[in-house]
Amino acid sequence: MSLYIGIDVGGTTIKGAIIDRNGKLYGEDSVTTGKGEEIADGIEVICNRLIVNSGIAVERVKGVGIGCAGVIDAENGTVVLSSNLRLKDFPLAKLVEERMHIPVKITNDANAAALGEAKFGAGKNYSDSVLVTLGTGVGGGIVIGGKLFEGNKSAGAELGHMVIERGGNRCTCGRRGCFEAYSSATALIKRTKWAMEEDAGSAMWQSCTSDTATGKTAFDYADCDIAAHEVVDWYIKYLACGLVNIANIFRPQVIMLGGGVSAQRENLTAPIQNILDRELFAGHYAPVKVTTATLGAAAGAYGAAALMIQE
Amino acid sequence: MSLYIGIDVGGTTIKGAIIDRNGKLYGEDSVTTGKGEEIADGIEVICNRLIVNSGIAVERVKGVGIGCAGVIDAENGTVVLSSNLRLKDFPLAKLVEERMHIPVKITNDANAAALGEAKFGAGKNYSDSVLVTLGTGVGGGIVIGGKLFEGNKSAGAELGHMVIERGGNRCTCGRRGCFEAYSSATALIKRTKWAMEEDAGSAMWQSCTSDTATGKTAFDYADCDIAAHEVVDWYIKYLACGLVNIANIFRPQVIMLGGGVSAQRENLTAPIQNILDRELFAGHYAPVKVTTATLGAAAGAYGAAALMIQE
Repeated sequence: MSLYIGIDVGGTTIKGAIIDRNGKLYGEDSVTTGKGEEIADGIEVICNRLIVNSGIAVERVKGVGIGCAGVIDAENGTVVLSSNLRLKDFPLAKLVEERMHIPVKITNDANAAALGEAKFGAGKNYSDSVLVTLGTGVGGGIVIGGKLFEGNKSAGAELGHMVIERGGNRCTCGRRGCFEAYSSATALIKRTKWAMEEDAGSAMWQSCTSDTATGKTAFDYADCDIAAHEVVDWYIKYLACGLVNIANIFRPQVIMLGGGVSAQRENLTAPIQNILDRELFAGHYAPVKVTTATLGAAAGAYGAAALMIQE
Repeated sequence: MSLYIGIDVGGTTIKGAIIDRNGKLYGEDSVTTGKGEEIADGIEVICNRLIVNSGIAVERVKGVGIGCAGVIDAENGTVVLSSNLRLKDFPLAKLVEERMHIPVKITNDANAAALGEAKFGAGKNYSDSVLVTLGTGVGGGIVIGGKLFEGNKSAGAELGHMVIERGGNRCTCGRRGCFEAYSSATALIKRTKWAMEEDAGSAMWQSCTSDTATGKTAFDYADCDIAAHEVVDWYIKYLACGLVNIANIFRPQVIMLGGGVSAQRENLTAPIQNILDRELFAGHYAPVKVTTATLGAAAGAYGAAALMIQE
């Protein structure tokens, strides 16, 4: 059976996995992310290790897919801009192809994760799914009819930069009121700290200071503390607002939540499903299910490999 | 050359056109919209007239496409629900196919208009375009790689029901703060009336009363009257907010504005293009052009015909 290598290039680590078309794992590996051209070296090292250590013939590897942070031009195989990785107009796909003599495709990391979850994770029983990752920012990826939707020049799918409260909180993109400015883990932590400072009697102070509060803090105390409860309520309202928008726009069968905050599982999905069922346009006709992603940090590498799997 | 019939079923009129794959028009016709099953009769009448009056052999007609108001299940060819047309779970495609003995496809009217503009109108030089119609509501249609994007069960593309101001103006869909509640002609007229009533000295009173104000009124006086200017400003800000969202999500090459308000042309597109260029995520890399639709009321029938044109 043919095998496929998936590479996930993040700011600190490059992860790799080798799988077959059913998602069966033949090996995993990782290296520290270098800077600039070293990233191509790192990918070559991982590819060779994966092939050698899994003991398979190189001819069985039909492609290398790469998911990479930053603005990616999938058609030309280049990293247009990645500040974290210090790359600009960098022909990463071509460089890896020259070294490995195996076809290479590239997409951005959020899209790769979405494709991974869609094919092998929480979306595997659906043809149309959206992954929304709640981390430092809000990332998104859209799979329609089993294929990634990236937009013209792969610049679409920026679900985090949809304004849901015009004139609201400042976003890193320069606009105000973006989904990301309310629904990222960063926004949740900021709101938690604010609530703690507002209420010196809040039970949240028992486990941490406002400096060490995390995206878990408010959820941990939501049942016993009104301030924590209000933070969770606030967070879920905004998150649901953005997710109903996404559901109205794409009408996937399933929306999968990933990233740090998604560890809350039913605490998050149950109230959001309620709001979605109530507010979705023509919701009875075509409902949308909300669930949490299942592959975790492996989604990116799996999805990158899936770029190379022909239907 | 093969010919294709496009039918646009609206609340008051059913319009039809017969075209070739290049959009060359061979004939047009219309009938008053009947209720319920009469709609299939009306479509049959138009199809026969179009064929007979254009003097072409019936064998040359390779398909009938229908754009219809309401919730449409494109896959099954049914009108799931259309309150205006009093249709529910109505197998319109099948009924027309049985009468005409020609293959029939159906989509909703907003999607048909988007496909018409994409293929033969303002979007004809682009593979990825979005049509946003500013009328009684805000409708939308998305064409990606030359094909309509309808979402699961054709229930996506509800661009008007994207919240851009959480907790804001009440929308017909039940949510608050939807794009449609700010950017429809209805919302513009409401705001114009409100501004007139706020300011008895407004120049807008010269041509109309607050009862007879239209979507044109504020634009007509924007240069000479501060109240009118503020209405236009307000309208453009919200409209641009929603359009930047759409651009970030789909990243089409072009956004086309249709519907009554789009008659303002450069008064609308110039300020919106400015905001879009400034606020778009990674806008320099993949800019989005804003323009007005060019086919007007004919877009729906052209697009419906295009449903049947194989690439």
